[in-house]
Amino acid sequence: MNYPSKLIATAVAEFKKLPGIGEKTALRLILHLLKQDEDKVTNFSEAVRQMRSEVKTCEKCYNYSDHKVCDLCTNVNRDASVVCVVENIRDVIAIENTGTFRGLYHVLGGIISPVNGIGPDELNIQGLLDRIRADEVKEIIMAISPTMEGDTTIYYISKVLQEFEVKLTTIARGVSFGGELEYTDELTLARSLASRMPYENYIVK
Amino acid sequence: MNYPSKLIATAVAEFKKLPGIGEKTALRLILHLLKQDEDKVTNFSEAVRQMRSEVKTCEKCYNYSDHKVCDLCTNVNRDASVVCVVENIRDVIAIENTGTFRGLYHVLGGIISPVNGIGPDELNIQGLLDRIRADEVKEIIMAISPTMEGDTTIYYISKVLQEFEVKLTTIARGVSFGGELEYTDELTLARSLASRMPYENYIVK
Repeated sequence: MNYPSKLIATAVAEFKKLPGIGEKTALRLILHLLKQDEDKVTNFSEAVRQMRSEVKTCEKCYNYSDHKVCDLCTNVNRDASVVCVVENIRDVIAIENTGTFRGLYHVLGGIISPVNGIGPDELNIQGLLDRIRADEVKEIIMAISPTMEGDTTIYYISKVLQEFEVKLTTIARGVSFGGELEYTDELTLARSLASRMPYENYIVK
Repeated sequence: MNYPSKLIATAVAEFKKLPGIGEKTALRLILHLLKQDEDKVTNFSEAVRQMRSEVKTCEKCYNYSDHKVCDLCTNVNRDASVVCVVENIRDVIAIENTGTFRGLYHVLGGIISPVNGIGPDELNIQGLLDRIRADEVKEIIMAISPTMEGDTTIYYISKVLQEFEVKLTTIARGVSFGGELEYTDELTLARSLASRMPYENYIVK
């Protein structure tokens, strides 16, 4: 498309890079921003820049954080003996929004997926083992989307954890098969956390 | 929703202010940006800020522009005797993308809408009259969405233009009734420009 201004064209091109945003949507957003007060647009721009520049990865659980160690890991009211292992930060947010989990998290940063070239070494599994060694972790809850790749990941971690004296559980199969964890409603997600089961029961024989 | 980082929460809140962007979409965009290289996100942020800060309104046609007078108005290859009057900049972009119009534009900045409290004084009509007085404008093409408000605007301008020796035309009613100009396909829009008709024929008797 031809734009009357190179500045508008550049801004539209930047918005188009975002997932799910096409050219018409990008233009609509840009024209909306052009109608806003300049300081509001500066706030928008600065919030995005500052976020990317300053957000850290928690050294302990690999969650995004404003500090070296995240607010969840440093919260003394959380139960450090229970660690919920998730694929990504969206899953942390989803579980936190159920308001029912009082343990800590461990973000793998993905799941084992040979098709996408993601093996165990690409995931934050070593960090999980370090935590088990260092902390008094009694239970690991695998809150991984119940897909084939998710199951593979759970299986792999179960093997690695065999040498540790730690209880391994998975969230109940209330989450529909092939479904994505982050889109599950909060009630289902809360219940599947509450009715978690030993890993042995998880395998269909 | 609870976010593990105040910076993320702030950025999500800023994205949520954009039209058509809900919280889940905002979070998805933010997490996408967090995975990008920092300089890419800086480019995004800076493009938006700079655009809002530096884009001007063309003194002549009220189109957005990088300069005091826009590239269209200063282009000597455009026919300054034909001025196409449109509601907003999206319509300029839509017509420009047909690649068939060689005249200039005049952006009203809205249409007469008593419901929304927009009267003739809120529109850039005086600027249009100034242009007719100053330039050798021979024809005014009304390219306004054929809605009730659009028709009211066309009627009002036709009355104001009676004292000038200028031909008043409207784009052909190839654009469907109640439809928005910016979503019309380029062929229909190009044809309705080509088969424009005298304003007298436009009124249904």
